[in-house]
Amino acid sequence: MDNFMFYNPTRIVFGKNAVSGLSKLLKKQGTTKVLLHYGGGSIFKNGAHKDVVAELNLLGIPFVELGGVQSNPRISLVKKGIELVKAENIDFILALGGGSVIDSAKAIGVGAYKQDVWEDLFMTGNPAKKMMGLGVVSTLAATGSESSTSCVITSDEAGYKRGIGGEALLPAFLLLDPRYTYTLSAHQTACGACGIMAHLLERYFTGSSDVEFTDKLLESTMLTVKEFAPLALQKPDDYNARSQLMWAGTMAHNNLLNTGRTGDWASHKIEHELSDRYDIAHGQGLAVIFPAWMRYVYRTDTARFERLAKSVWGSEKKGVEAAEEGINRLESWLESLGLKTRLKELNIDSRDFVLMAKMCLKHRPYIGEFVRLNQSDIQSIYKLAL
Amino acid sequence: MDNFMFYNPTRIVFGKNAVSGLSKLLKKQGTTKVLLHYGGGSIFKNGAHKDVVAELNLLGIPFVELGGVQSNPRISLVKKGIELVKAENIDFILALGGGSVIDSAKAIGVGAYKQDVWEDLFMTGNPAKKMMGLGVVSTLAATGSESSTSCVITSDEAGYKRGIGGEALLPAFLLLDPRYTYTLSAHQTACGACGIMAHLLERYFTGSSDVEFTDKLLESTMLTVKEFAPLALQKPDDYNARSQLMWAGTMAHNNLLNTGRTGDWASHKIEHELSDRYDIAHGQGLAVIFPAWMRYVYRTDTARFERLAKSVWGSEKKGVEAAEEGINRLESWLESLGLKTRLKELNIDSRDFVLMAKMCLKHRPYIGEFVRLNQSDIQSIYKLAL
Repeated sequence: MDNFMFYNPTRIVFGKNAVSGLSKLLKKQGTTKVLLHYGGGSIFKNGAHKDVVAELNLLGIPFVELGGVQSNPRISLVKKGIELVKAENIDFILALGGGSVIDSAKAIGVGAYKQDVWEDLFMTGNPAKKMMGLGVVSTLAATGSESSTSCVITSDEAGYKRGIGGEALLPAFLLLDPRYTYTLSAHQTACGACGIMAHLLERYFTGSSDVEFTDKLLESTMLTVKEFAPLALQKPDDYNARSQLMWAGTMAHNNLLNTGRTGDWASHKIEHELSDRYDIAHGQGLAVIFPAWMRYVYRTDTARFERLAKSVWGSEKKGVEAAEEGINRLESWLESLGLKTRLKELNIDSRDFVLMAKMCLKHRPYIGEFVRLNQSDIQSIYKLAL
Repeated sequence: MDNFMFYNPTRIVFGKNAVSGLSKLLKKQGTTKVLLHYGGGSIFKNGAHKDVVAELNLLGIPFVELGGVQSNPRISLVKKGIELVKAENIDFILALGGGSVIDSAKAIGVGAYKQDVWEDLFMTGNPAKKMMGLGVVSTLAATGSESSTSCVITSDEAGYKRGIGGEALLPAFLLLDPRYTYTLSAHQTACGACGIMAHLLERYFTGSSDVEFTDKLLESTMLTVKEFAPLALQKPDDYNARSQLMWAGTMAHNNLLNTGRTGDWASHKIEHELSDRYDIAHGQGLAVIFPAWMRYVYRTDTARFERLAKSVWGSEKKGVEAAEEGINRLESWLESLGLKTRLKELNIDSRDFVLMAKMCLKHRPYIGEFVRLNQSDIQSIYKLAL
């Protein structure tokens, strides 16, 4: 087990009417004016906007709204948010939505203390040291950004993503009401489940040894996602299925399940180039890239893939055969959720493979910790994903 | 899944030389003078005292020492600690040891703000609202107090225990170096492992429904303890085994594994009367009481006991037979660790059973949430434990 530091002070309120604690939490923060930050129409459909506004009015806390966050959130809107925060003397940000909205809110919160948030923070790669008070009302079980130490933003002009890290990025509180996820489309639910599974797999494929406890916790969490994602699709208002998924999604990315171990994270980087370039959701991209990555690397550590196949995917085979069956079953599960698992099905051909592989390596000599990949490896993985 | 609130801001540093971060952490807290609180000689044997003193000297932080914490820590020493804190203008407490030391330190930390800590806090049962800065160097994988919201103290005069709760009881930081547990006796290691297993079982036997995710996490943690406790006994300086046990012990009691569910906790209360009255360790008492409790209640929910038997204890039987095999295997595992599983082996007879059962119910009409127990039930469990 590697040495580690774990710190996650986000206060989490989970369950039906979780938002009803909002006014008390804001009062505790000494909030005087709130920026309500969100995306498109989903929070009007699922009731989150109405509930939050009712709570703010209850306490008489003034607020300013800034919607319009897109998936792959843009720095231009972040800058608009920062201006708003300054002009309106806002001292607390409430993010209502999924990972894109939360990341956009985090970037506003750290950007309020910078001259130029993109140049001074995202382009430097330095850890974020200070963030405004941030509360999250999560409406999607997917990214885990609601309880993570990271934030990814896309430059409108340059067209690429940059991520920052740092414990300052942890929200002060997080309200999780699984019922807000009832109105998600089947595709959103499926992409979310794939995103959670991918977060778990990235951690599972580790370069660290002696990690039995966290291996077991990861397997338990994967089994939970495997079991409940199909149930949430069958019956969108299944409270139990939505609860398990939502809590698993947060736990998958709050750093507890990678205590004492490194993760791989090559598939995430390979996918980022894909959703940067083509109009697909991150979760959909991962459904294509992860099985391809697995097929490319599994022979380097068949035992690990065999263990995954047995413990999560119910394989009773051995060695290479088990490893292959595990990958096939993961892929079948993704397809059963309605996700595509091949680039061709998404109308993506090989024309950008070389360029995307180069972009993956723009600021680093290799990607991946479980298996280090060079440009030729990455191109091969894109090809396997065709 | 029940609604829940989760908050645990303790900063955890885990691994070899975890203590080397101490001076930085104390500086961050603005510490000017430390109370070093510990038990008997173990911290001199395992190196923790030397390492901590070296760190304090490095930063030039003055400190006062107060040792002598016994298992089942006493309010008299707590009061002495409070006087010392006031007389010496101490602003931070460092607890070096296991659960008893940590609980004693917590009681000093909250008592510093009370007129009479026993009367004004422990006898009222009110939650603790405010605690002095507390850091923990844990030297035992057992109680989980290092990251818990609870604290149990024994009155010297009255001779009974009282517990308090409250998030104020969470330490500011926690340093876990598994090597400090190398010098534990086999009995201490075994009692610690049984204590961890008992914390997991108390949570596992729940009155809540739809708790599949945390069920799985609990099973994973139980499997980890089951696997690594015997290895730590075989080879006391097995870093991997000690690491898995130590991290599992903290995770078992930091409230994450009971998110969305209630626990039972009857066995703990039945055991408390035992270690209050007889000179046995809490972990040893639990090794006697838990199997007896299980045998008394398993027919009320055979399915749950069957699941435990299959998922943790490898039973391939069904129904009642599986349930019984699971209990037998737990008991055999405890015995394999060198623990006694019968009161007779501890030279305890039936003379106090009625009194102890009455004491269990002194301030409540029943104990247990999975199965509610009255006085006659509790007496029957003591009898089964004979």
